[in-house]
Amino acid sequence: MPGLMACRAEFGPSQPFKGARISGSLHMTIQTAVLIETLTALGAEVRWCSCNIFSTQDHAAAAIARDSAAVFAWKGETLEEYWWCTERCLDWGVGGGPDLIVDDGGDATLLIHEGVKAEEEFEKSGKVPDPESTDNAEFKIVLTIIRDGLKSDPSKYRKMKERLVGVSEETTTGVKRLYQMQETGALLFPAINVNDSVTKSKFDNLYGCRHSLPDGLMRATDVMIAGKVAVVCGYGDVGKGCAAALKQAGARVIVTEIDPICALQALMEGLQVLTLEDVVSEADIFVTTTGNKDIIMVDHMRKMKNNAIVCNIGHFDNEIDMLGLETYPGVKRITIKPQTDRWVFPETNTGIIVLAEGRLMNLGCATGHPSFVMSCSFTNQVIAQLELWKEKSTGKYEKKVYVLPKHLDEKVAALHLGKLGARLTKLSKSQADYISVPVEGPYKPAHYRY
Amino acid sequence: MPGLMACRAEFGPSQPFKGARISGSLHMTIQTAVLIETLTALGAEVRWCSCNIFSTQDHAAAAIARDSAAVFAWKGETLEEYWWCTERCLDWGVGGGPDLIVDDGGDATLLIHEGVKAEEEFEKSGKVPDPESTDNAEFKIVLTIIRDGLKSDPSKYRKMKERLVGVSEETTTGVKRLYQMQETGALLFPAINVNDSVTKSKFDNLYGCRHSLPDGLMRATDVMIAGKVAVVCGYGDVGKGCAAALKQAGARVIVTEIDPICALQALMEGLQVLTLEDVVSEADIFVTTTGNKDIIMVDHMRKMKNNAIVCNIGHFDNEIDMLGLETYPGVKRITIKPQTDRWVFPETNTGIIVLAEGRLMNLGCATGHPSFVMSCSFTNQVIAQLELWKEKSTGKYEKKVYVLPKHLDEKVAALHLGKLGARLTKLSKSQADYISVPVEGPYKPAHYRY
Amino acid sequence: MPGLMACRAEFGPSQPFKGARISGSLHMTIQTAVLIETLTALGAEVRWCSCNIFSTQDHAAAAIARDSAAVFAWKGETLEEYWWCTERCLDWGVGGGPDLIVDDGGDATLLIHEGVKAEEEFEKSGKVPDPESTDNAEFKIVLTIIRDGLKSDPSKYRKMKERLVGVSEETTTGVKRLYQMQETGALLFPAINVNDSVTKSKFDNLYGCRHSLPDGLMRATDVMIAGKVAVVCGYGDVGKGCAAALKQAGARVIVTEIDPICALQALMEGLQVLTLEDVVSEADIFVTTTGNKDIIMVDHMRKMKNNAIVCNIGHFDNEIDMLGLETYPGVKRITIKPQTDRWVFPETNTGIIVLAEGRLMNLGCATGHPSFVMSCSFTNQVIAQLELWKEKSTGKYEKKVYVLPKHLDEKVAALHLGKLGARLTKLSKSQADYISVPVEGPYKPAHYRY
Amino acid sequence: MPGLMACRAEFGPSQPFKGARISGSLHMTIQTAVLIETLTALGAEVRWCSCNIFSTQDHAAAAIARDSAAVFAWKGETLEEYWWCTERCLDWGVGGGPDLIVDDGGDATLLIHEGVKAEEEFEKSGKVPDPESTDNAEFKIVLTIIRDGLKSDPSKYRKMKERLVGVSEETTTGVKRLYQMQETGALLFPAINVNDSVTKSKFDNLYGCRHSLPDGLMRATDVMIAGKVAVVCGYGDVGKGCAAALKQAGARVIVTEIDPICALQALMEGLQVLTLEDVVSEADIFVTTTGNKDIIMVDHMRKMKNNAIVCNIGHFDNEIDMLGLETYPGVKRITIKPQTDRWVFPETNTGIIVLAEGRLMNLGCATGHPSFVMSCSFTNQVIAQLELWKEKSTGKYEKKVYVLPKHLDEKVAALHLGKLGARLTKLSKSQADYISVPVEGPYKPAHYRY
Repeated sequence: MPGLMACRAEFGPSQPFKGARISGSLHMTIQTAVLIETLTALGAEVRWCSCNIFSTQDHAAAAIARDSAAVFAWKGETLEEYWWCTERCLDWGVGGGPDLIVDDGGDATLLIHEGVKAEEEFEKSGKVPDPESTDNAEFKIVLTIIRDGLKSDPSKYRKMKERLVGVSEETTTGVKRLYQMQETGALLFPAINVNDSVTKSKFDNLYGCRHSLPDGLMRATDVMIAGKVAVVCGYGDVGKGCAAALKQAGARVIVTEIDPICALQALMEGLQVLTLEDVVSEADIFVTTTGNKDIIMVDHMRKMKNNAIVCNIGHFDNEIDMLGLETYPGVKRITIKPQTDRWVFPETNTGIIVLAEGRLMNLGCATGHPSFVMSCSFTNQVIAQLELWKEKSTGKYEKKVYVLPKHLDEKVAALHLGKLGARLTKLSKSQADYISVPVEGPYKPAHYRY
Repeated sequence: MPGLMACRAEFGPSQPFKGARISGSLHMTIQTAVLIETLTALGAEVRWCSCNIFSTQDHAAAAIARDSAAVFAWKGETLEEYWWCTERCLDWGVGGGPDLIVDDGGDATLLIHEGVKAEEEFEKSGKVPDPESTDNAEFKIVLTIIRDGLKSDPSKYRKMKERLVGVSEETTTGVKRLYQMQETGALLFPAINVNDSVTKSKFDNLYGCRHSLPDGLMRATDVMIAGKVAVVCGYGDVGKGCAAALKQAGARVIVTEIDPICALQALMEGLQVLTLEDVVSEADIFVTTTGNKDIIMVDHMRKMKNNAIVCNIGHFDNEIDMLGLETYPGVKRITIKPQTDRWVFPETNTGIIVLAEGRLMNLGCATGHPSFVMSCSFTNQVIAQLELWKEKSTGKYEKKVYVLPKHLDEKVAALHLGKLGARLTKLSKSQADYISVPVEGPYKPAHYRY
Repeated sequence: MPGLMACRAEFGPSQPFKGARISGSLHMTIQTAVLIETLTALGAEVRWCSCNIFSTQDHAAAAIARDSAAVFAWKGETLEEYWWCTERCLDWGVGGGPDLIVDDGGDATLLIHEGVKAEEEFEKSGKVPDPESTDNAEFKIVLTIIRDGLKSDPSKYRKMKERLVGVSEETTTGVKRLYQMQETGALLFPAINVNDSVTKSKFDNLYGCRHSLPDGLMRATDVMIAGKVAVVCGYGDVGKGCAAALKQAGARVIVTEIDPICALQALMEGLQVLTLEDVVSEADIFVTTTGNKDIIMVDHMRKMKNNAIVCNIGHFDNEIDMLGLETYPGVKRITIKPQTDRWVFPETNTGIIVLAEGRLMNLGCATGHPSFVMSCSFTNQVIAQLELWKEKSTGKYEKKVYVLPKHLDEKVAALHLGKLGARLTKLSKSQADYISVPVEGPYKPAHYRY
Repeated sequence: MPGLMACRAEFGPSQPFKGARISGSLHMTIQTAVLIETLTALGAEVRWCSCNIFSTQDHAAAAIARDSAAVFAWKGETLEEYWWCTERCLDWGVGGGPDLIVDDGGDATLLIHEGVKAEEEFEKSGKVPDPESTDNAEFKIVLTIIRDGLKSDPSKYRKMKERLVGVSEETTTGVKRLYQMQETGALLFPAINVNDSVTKSKFDNLYGCRHSLPDGLMRATDVMIAGKVAVVCGYGDVGKGCAAALKQAGARVIVTEIDPICALQALMEGLQVLTLEDVVSEADIFVTTTGNKDIIMVDHMRKMKNNAIVCNIGHFDNEIDMLGLETYPGVKRITIKPQTDRWVFPETNTGIIVLAEGRLMNLGCATGHPSFVMSCSFTNQVIAQLELWKEKSTGKYEKKVYVLPKHLDEKVAALHLGKLGARLTKLSKSQADYISVPVEGPYKPAHYRY
């Protein structure tokens, strides 16, 4: 992870995070361990939880817990355990919560926002959150935790809010929530959108998934991808990476899309664009990458070929209708090995293979993105956290969502070139003037798409 | 060109361009002919010139001249002829110039801006432009034309400016000029940046060049690309398309880049990133795609292997040091066929093959981008022109540079899907709410990179 | 063409072909010109004709006719002219015919065999060939020529046969005919099957077509391949090259096959395998590569989409049912440009684009295979001709079909490596012993498939 | 494994192997389990051992041992245990050895041939094999086993030989040994070369390794392949599969080759061809695929970058100089996890990662080839065993090496098409006549290379 190593070399001596408490909610893998160790090497105190019930690598968690930080995460948490871990991670005891949050998917941020809302309502009306007010199983748990917390400390989340300098958010789903809160004015502290750094969104989402989708498929099922028909739902960066990996491995890839621009991009790569209904009974492998819900429903799954593989590498497990599957009358679940289940339908006695219970299959069935990609993403995180902390008293960042300035994005990339033997060309002064950029960059306008 | 056909069907009956004079400066090919005919079918009067001395397809120019519009363009113009054509194209006689400009590279826009500047100086100080004040051969000609024009009508360009509703600009180079003028406050009329529509920049630049680079190479030289070492200077959208085409055809591709992010993207595709100096004597094919100047200098060319191929698909011919080559002592130029020259150096008696005299080789040696790609680009142009004309009196567009709103970009894509047999998925209301977009789009935030 | 240059350097001084008359029937292109010049540089006298009515490049033919050999070939021969040329090419006047034949498709060999058969029948029974005895338009002409020849010299072809040392045959179709004649005992002289040298079949057929199929498509139609549906009929080496080129250019490729092994290979590359009937109305581009007849019939063509492109890169024009198309009631042929015809069906008033009148489109619409590939093929030809001539009196070659020994095949490859900057690893003696091959090769058993 | 399932359906009822004893020496994986069960379902009695000390999947071995056959194999055998297993597998007690052998690499066949040689020598001269006569650690063990066996039964291997109907051999290495024995007349029984069925060599070697090389790399090291420099030693079918997989995953691939034809093929795919010495200090990943010995020596390994990955997917572990590495003065071996060792050199204190102790990394670090590929290979095995057994008394097979007739090869392919949704085109009678093949195949001449 050359970027993180470079950060330690550059910033370690000056201990810029001295006095900062950082809470992180992000897959507790060996790569994250290097991130945590980088944060502590720069002077921070750290508490950590995972942002996915299956993604923790227990040996990584154990090593960090031993050497570097408080960790609340293990592979195979229940949803109750998951939210308990999140709450623990945010609770620094005396003096409230963390100064900074590293978030992935926005669950830590959500808990604080929901907590503050409930505390304010409680103060105003005495009303406590009612877990029965929602159908969403996970949100029920969130409300329960907050309700129970109100009894012991009715201003806990507000104290957290007061202390918080800001959050840096890792992924599309979390960023989307942040922009929504910004729009409604509900955002309680500044946020840096790390996801939309080019060196994050284009690297982690695209190249990371291109690596880890086939890895997860092979480890979970040993399926030969060549010759198979694969459906990739969604052709954003994640979908592009997945489709490329499957095509290169010899599959025939069919894409489903709602966005005509992305659909046209798929066509330009020789991929067929159809609806899920068109191909549901013909394909061998189904991958959801949309970041939306209700993509593959139980009614689709019933029509699939025997032993079709269904998996999600988008974000939440609701891309696949797991609830519909679990509650389908007479369905049988046969666990082939952990994270690889065969679900058999009673009518046909045929079954489909669902990976990682519908959650992120690359983390559940393999080891997630490789270190090189995560080094790009996490170097963005470190730089964002440094920026937030440095500017904590300057008012530079309001309660809004920001992206990292382009020269920092370019810096992240530059830190990763040497390891791969690349040699950059240097712009001459007259060339730089000719295209009106500084010799040392940034080289592209903000809207440039790469 | 399904997008243009769809525009005619949708807008033709209402004749929205009735009364509008449109001047276009854009490669006069058969695809442009369809654009011109679309503009006239929507009610416009049109005058046209090419934006490149080699890119005119004479049969296309002739057909348009006969049926649809005044055309000032032929294959193989001199630079003097080129600027004469540009001036003719802008000159509508009585009542000044055009209402709208379709520009590609910004030469029409440049001429007006330089003209206005000279007229104002002349009025103020009596000074006329001095062609000898510049080393740039082409700019000398521009100044000469303006100087000569001052004699007959010292307010010609200012009258043009008064009448002009706006310009829609096709390409990176022209857009860059526009943003510079916007920054210095020099921009004289509103501009729509068509280049940065996704359906333009990602399609024309990337997929268009992926098609037309090998086409130009094969038509000009019949070279077998497989097994060769190819250097692509620049890894923007054009460079990405070129590198992909060369790699797929079996070349070993080496990229040169100044931007660490683009360099890292090249590495992720398995391409080596080096400097030109590192590989100049080893490679067989050199392609410039940077949009900058002074990329391949005569000193590079002298060190190349015998019969190395050197070509430019970026923008201006100054990416390759043609001046240095032409004035190299003792160099011999042997024209193998039009647009394919062998330049022999006296020291070694070996030579290199330069395509299209350093100008755009896909237009000079082949037929440019294929119709499908140009349909995307030109549908953006039509929609931009319609938008400018519709809003001509509303003040919606100030003297600034705008991009097309995303829903129009998505519309351009959607108009091209049916032809390729694609079937889009429809978002449900609850899915649209879940990701906070309208059911009918636009589906992505403005900063989304595709 | 590094292999041919190396042959001249190695063999030129000893003039091994001194006294040899070589007749060649092979596409008269610039690459063939280099072959002819190599043969003459090695001491041979040469006469040449083309083996395809459209493939002659007139400037190449003219240059050879002026400098090196008698040439009977021009672009756009009629079938009568074609066979007249073939007959001329074989006729050396005094002393009968050639000593050696370079054949491509076997037409020169066919004419001699049919001639000898007719002369023997005529001597025996006085019967002359009856052109009306066959439905095949081309064979009618062959019989006519032979019949007319019988009058002036009833032993002409037998004298040719007597003199002939052997033939080296370039292509699958011709080789197939030779093996058939060998089986029935009809073969009149030794033959070397150059087609099945690895450096021919795997290079010319596979890499050559991968280059020249898209080249022909683009030059003839400027079609954008990306996004299109392409059907490749046959997945032998030619089909593999075509499918690879189309897939890489962004088409969705569907293969038709009769051979389950080749079909499984297509599937492993992610290509769909269907019958022509399954996809005839859905695809945009159809390419025949089978070497068989009656692949795309007029009934298929009637069902195609408007402006579907139909072309052949296999061998003879009967892969496409040109006869059925030409005689279809009410069909209209509109020549867009030479070798690019639109055929409009009366029922639908829609049309298809047929390239090169159903003959080899890479030769008819582009310039055939590039020189590097042809250098491999033709170096095999030169080495085969040398071998036949050297052994003319030793009896080493009987009236059978032979392939070149593997060490000569490896030599052809080795002659082409330096040009591409490759550095071979050298086997140590102990490694060579370990795998039981000589240090200097050949390295593979005869049945090795590469 | 559709081919094996089809064999059971077609041949199960007639129990063609009734009375046959089959000994197999072939990686004891779950795929092999299906092969064993197919052989027993067709009536055979079976004993089995693995042909690689690391490749056994213990759960597969256990299941077979419980249900179907005697198994002598476990993951992580010592070399002594390995040969003990091989001997056990061949020993059927009363009545000598097996009727048929399924061999992979030829170790079972070797043991019998060496045994017979020793027994004959012993009978003649009383001399017993001397393990000290060889430097080869493994061959020492073979000689020891045979020497020890001579004491208890000096005609054991000769009795085996008498009973043996034949062997079918799976892989290149084993086949090479067989042809050598055929040449020297040493071959003691008929052999069918299954390796050179197209549906084996082109599928298992090429497509199998294309799947399992990246799988093994990822499982062992989680390395990101994109952006890395990978060296593939050897460009035969295995090397072609590996190079394709690495290139597609985004590595820059460099090939080393001794054979100029294979080298030229690599170049045509855009791969650089250099010697190992040229690139040893620059590359990140090294893969041996040659089937030869002494490819990567300890002197190479010392010069590699820190944490370079070195692995073998060719055949024996002597492709990599494991002996040189293990005995290098001061070298330290750090086992990261089973089959993944870091070897640190004392001079530099940097290390390399060696997978599977230099043995087949796809079997040692992953799960070998996927079932679909193995179904092709093993269907060839079943058909070969059936053929040998059916012809056991007819004398059809002499003490020579045979390949399966092409129509059986095509049959294997056909059995795998349906599963992938392919639809074959049927040849018409007139088409079949035109190309002189039977309507039902075989469709290609024996020398066809696919």
